[in-house]
Amino acid sequence: MNAQHAGSNNVSLDLTTDGFTLTYKQRVILRHSDKVPCLWIGAGTADIEMFRGNFSIKDLLREKITLKNITVTAKNNGWVIRFTRADDINATLFISTDQQGRLELRVKNDSPSYNRIWLRLAAQPDDHIYGGGEQFSYFDLRGKPFPLWTSEQGIGRNKKHHITWLADCHENAGGDYYWTFYPQPTFVSTQKYYCHIDNTCYMNFDFSAPDYHELAFWEDNATLRFECADTYIELLEKLTALLGRQQELPDWVYDGVTLGIQGGTDVCQQKLDLMRSSGVKVNGIWAQDWSGCRMTSFGKRVMWNWSWDHERYPQLDKRIQQWDQQGIKFLSYINPYVASDKNLCKEAAERGFLTKDANNLDYHVEFGEFYAGVIDLTNPEAYDWYKGVIKKNLIELGCAGWMADFGEYLPTDTFLYNGVSAEIMHNAWPVLWAKCNYEALQETDKLGEVLFFMRAGYTGSQKYSTMMWAGDQNVDWSLDDGLASVIPAALSLAMSGHGLHHSDIGGYTTLYGMKRSKELLMRWCEFSAFTPMMRTHEGNRPADNWQFDGDSETIAHFARMTSIFTTLKPYIKDAVSQNALRGLPVMRPLFIHYEDDPHTYTLKYQYLFGRDLLVAPVYEEGRSSWTVYLPEDDWISIWTGERFAGGEITVSTPIGKPPVFYRKQSEWCVLFASLRQINS
Amino acid sequence: MNAQHAGSNNVSLDLTTDGFTLTYKQRVILRHSDKVPCLWIGAGTADIEMFRGNFSIKDLLREKITLKNITVTAKNNGWVIRFTRADDINATLFISTDQQGRLELRVKNDSPSYNRIWLRLAAQPDDHIYGGGEQFSYFDLRGKPFPLWTSEQGIGRNKKHHITWLADCHENAGGDYYWTFYPQPTFVSTQKYYCHIDNTCYMNFDFSAPDYHELAFWEDNATLRFECADTYIELLEKLTALLGRQQELPDWVYDGVTLGIQGGTDVCQQKLDLMRSSGVKVNGIWAQDWSGCRMTSFGKRVMWNWSWDHERYPQLDKRIQQWDQQGIKFLSYINPYVASDKNLCKEAAERGFLTKDANNLDYHVEFGEFYAGVIDLTNPEAYDWYKGVIKKNLIELGCAGWMADFGEYLPTDTFLYNGVSAEIMHNAWPVLWAKCNYEALQETDKLGEVLFFMRAGYTGSQKYSTMMWAGDQNVDWSLDDGLASVIPAALSLAMSGHGLHHSDIGGYTTLYGMKRSKELLMRWCEFSAFTPMMRTHEGNRPADNWQFDGDSETIAHFARMTSIFTTLKPYIKDAVSQNALRGLPVMRPLFIHYEDDPHTYTLKYQYLFGRDLLVAPVYEEGRSSWTVYLPEDDWISIWTGERFAGGEITVSTPIGKPPVFYRKQSEWCVLFASLRQINS
Repeated sequence: MNAQHAGSNNVSLDLTTDGFTLTYKQRVILRHSDKVPCLWIGAGTADIEMFRGNFSIKDLLREKITLKNITVTAKNNGWVIRFTRADDINATLFISTDQQGRLELRVKNDSPSYNRIWLRLAAQPDDHIYGGGEQFSYFDLRGKPFPLWTSEQGIGRNKKHHITWLADCHENAGGDYYWTFYPQPTFVSTQKYYCHIDNTCYMNFDFSAPDYHELAFWEDNATLRFECADTYIELLEKLTALLGRQQELPDWVYDGVTLGIQGGTDVCQQKLDLMRSSGVKVNGIWAQDWSGCRMTSFGKRVMWNWSWDHERYPQLDKRIQQWDQQGIKFLSYINPYVASDKNLCKEAAERGFLTKDANNLDYHVEFGEFYAGVIDLTNPEAYDWYKGVIKKNLIELGCAGWMADFGEYLPTDTFLYNGVSAEIMHNAWPVLWAKCNYEALQETDKLGEVLFFMRAGYTGSQKYSTMMWAGDQNVDWSLDDGLASVIPAALSLAMSGHGLHHSDIGGYTTLYGMKRSKELLMRWCEFSAFTPMMRTHEGNRPADNWQFDGDSETIAHFARMTSIFTTLKPYIKDAVSQNALRGLPVMRPLFIHYEDDPHTYTLKYQYLFGRDLLVAPVYEEGRSSWTVYLPEDDWISIWTGERFAGGEITVSTPIGKPPVFYRKQSEWCVLFASLRQINS
Repeated sequence: MNAQHAGSNNVSLDLTTDGFTLTYKQRVILRHSDKVPCLWIGAGTADIEMFRGNFSIKDLLREKITLKNITVTAKNNGWVIRFTRADDINATLFISTDQQGRLELRVKNDSPSYNRIWLRLAAQPDDHIYGGGEQFSYFDLRGKPFPLWTSEQGIGRNKKHHITWLADCHENAGGDYYWTFYPQPTFVSTQKYYCHIDNTCYMNFDFSAPDYHELAFWEDNATLRFECADTYIELLEKLTALLGRQQELPDWVYDGVTLGIQGGTDVCQQKLDLMRSSGVKVNGIWAQDWSGCRMTSFGKRVMWNWSWDHERYPQLDKRIQQWDQQGIKFLSYINPYVASDKNLCKEAAERGFLTKDANNLDYHVEFGEFYAGVIDLTNPEAYDWYKGVIKKNLIELGCAGWMADFGEYLPTDTFLYNGVSAEIMHNAWPVLWAKCNYEALQETDKLGEVLFFMRAGYTGSQKYSTMMWAGDQNVDWSLDDGLASVIPAALSLAMSGHGLHHSDIGGYTTLYGMKRSKELLMRWCEFSAFTPMMRTHEGNRPADNWQFDGDSETIAHFARMTSIFTTLKPYIKDAVSQNALRGLPVMRPLFIHYEDDPHTYTLKYQYLFGRDLLVAPVYEEGRSSWTVYLPEDDWISIWTGERFAGGEITVSTPIGKPPVFYRKQSEWCVLFASLRQINS
């Protein structure tokens, strides 16, 4: 046995006759021997088909080879391990620590013909794993493989659900448990370390095995970073120090609900008037059809030409100013594609700003009965031009925010200005898109004042995407794609370093006979009052869905829940600032603050909203009571004032009073207690 | 270039600087070079889960390695090619010809730790491929992979069909296009060669690529045999000379329909009397519940104890004799499992005749609300004992036949007497089961007099399984699992060397809301009149299905179709004898006799019944006309006498008059013309 140490003794490499053990701050990271190797290389060709953001991905694998033999060389700041199998089959692992004391592992295939790597990290059978970006079906990732590829999230996302089957039959759109707009090659282990990978290639993180995590990379190299901490809070601080943190939200966000309205200036005004006169706190109008519409069989679709449609929204510029004086913001919509039949696309094409096909012609993506060109964000001129479109057409108009939609659809057979393959750029695309929006704010000095929200993401979205939303849930109660799914989505994103998350109140996808019920809309509304932003969406087929102005009871419910939300403003603002300062997410898994309670590690449908509120949303239909797990603490029901010491309790949960508890020792006790005065 | 020849110049090996081309009678069989290799070896662990005969199969692949470098040594009768990559990564290919002039390729991994082989055979883009055992969804196998593993055939067998989805949700039972009771690693190429593999391991034959066929073997060795011919007829003769041929059928088979009846002696008698008095030609009663019943949620299930149930079938022994004198045979049922709660299983257990689990305890398989032990057919004593059960309980009772059901369910985690892994024995199991039945007939001198029919099969079923039936079709019109699917099943089996095939008239599986309609039963009946055996089945939920005695019109239809069938007796008998003598299947693809007509290679729902009848079954609901393709010949409509020279024609097809044509030059013209005299 030959133990070697590096980086202030934080990293040690213990050599055996046929292998090694790599330890980082008492965590075993890698184990290798002839019989139980840790590294494979291989060669394959990705077979990737895309239909409307739904991907079918196969690896036509030609080779997969275990690398058994090793040669270790000590270097200044670590080691170089050369893995060999035969003359032309070998790879090198560089082990080092950086100035922050992070462990860095870099694997590189020595022959370029090998474009696959499998690395097995050591694991303990009882480790839990969190993160992987935004995961809707599982919070603890242990026990399953998680392919990481930004795409549509799927409709239904569970092969045993009928909606999924229908969506699969129609457009291969049903999805599966790992489909997500926002994957990220980052995970946190309950051994209290994070592991983050720098690459953007297709990856598959397989947490199925008891004694290892197998990370597969569809590239000839991979860089892994590890950092440890004594607490999860400290660990998240370190992770967000690496990846970046979100700014604080504009102050107006806390002043009410953002109403998703379509149909033109007058419709917006009428609905706004109705809601405000009924006591609903409204902070803005979000009109995604500000640039016009087209009808498709999917429903009404926005016209992707990103300029104010004067016909549909007459006098919008003046109205935006009037509304602003009344404390009502106007939010619009944009995405990184331009409709092939409209003038913005023509301009982009003329300037050579669209991505290309194999014949060097402009690539047009089919988006469901219409086509759109892809702005080549790797071309600095195209990027700047599109940033200019945002500045001029959205910010100058007076938009206080917008949905920066899409980002997941970069086809892998398109060709980019920067010469990098679209397969490698695919996952990076949402971040380029976020950065383009972010810089438009930055360069107009609107950061912290104007807000855009995205569904697509990847590493870097932490810094550039000012707010995430959960994408397109079904307007139903399903665990994998309904209201419930938003909770693990927020928590897994929190463990991946993005701490700002909200969702379409009522969900979005209205297909295959689904219709949003009044109860679903009301439950979703009350849940959203305990997230950092409240925003409604009509759904893709508004007429099939119950809406916020569906009846007076619904409006009264919105009045109540927005009053609660706005009353919580100072508390939420404080939580958001902790996220901005320290990377402490606004919606947090319980185990972050109750790490000694093993049960908290298994909860995926409860969360802490800031430090002091425990929220257990009702995500089933027809429920009048709900069972909640409280970790040991002094808890007070926010609606009844009843006290609880911890454990599993069942409480009455009429609509408008979701299970929410606050800590007795909170400095916000008076504020919390005041919520009981708000009329039901 | 260095050309070497072996085996009377039939085989040549042309060497290049980095590879070779192996040619067999002008067909290029293998091509190998550094850049385009033909051989891979690897290592994996099969992850196989079984639930009621439905298998979920994954390969946990550890390695897959191209073997690039070769060393060729000439031997007496061929060559030995050693493929190497590294010291511990190599395999050997033995090339030789046998006394019949067949080309034999034997691949063997040199290290036992490599238990996977991928071999790419050279192909031409326009080759068609047929065989693969019994294939229900595709006849031409080109363009898809075909895993070869005996299992349930699936319910629905098409992921876009609702029935499939329901079956998948309930029991992972929906299946897919390649699921079959009877796979076989044998195919015929339109280059007019067959390729047959001796192994029984899990294989995957992938015919997707334009320039190669990739054969994957989950074993450390594989033996391939090739033979060429100038015609398909000669090729099938050669293939069946290798694999064995079926005996002629008992004469009584041609004398009418075998009525599937359940419910006891009296019910059988009543239905028999009704049918015969209505003019239906009946050759026998098939009573699968002769050994008793149990009720499950799937429907009524046979009691798996394989002895006459005196209570349910009083005086059966005497009645069998009476019926026999009237020309009515009695057929029963058996399978290779014994119900755990009954005495036959107890006896087998006491004698140590059941397969074992990992703790060396008797293995009991769950069959749907009951368990059964697996008779260990690799134990000669157990095999003989079970053969004795067949002789004593079935043959001595006077059964003229039986359904020898199942054979596909050998679990891969059971342990066998012969020490071979159940994963390797799994595909061989149906043949052991067939052989056990066959020898029971042989040893009691009943071959050609008593008939058993099987659904499960593999290489060797040609010799041992006296008749195949298509298994459990849905009682519907679906292409992948209804009436239509029986036709490619018969034709693919024909191209695999088994020429006797029939099906349950009306289908079997009655689940998820399916109910057999009168029209379906009648269309299936008229199709079956042009197969070598007519036999009905009530289905698993008889009360949900239209039955042969459903109304007088149905009975009259059976009278008409059985008259046609019995009138054809000398012709069918002659076709069956050609199958026995030369391996010419009774139901034949058109291209066998019209090989110059390229369109015939694409037909999967038409066939020749013997040499002179062309049959195009109506397999859609509500059709009164049907379009048929006739290859160039002198054709006469069997119902109208109208003459056709060839091409696509549309004919009227009322029920009872399916599209059937005979060749004007047939020696059976008078017989065929006489069918027009049979009353409708």
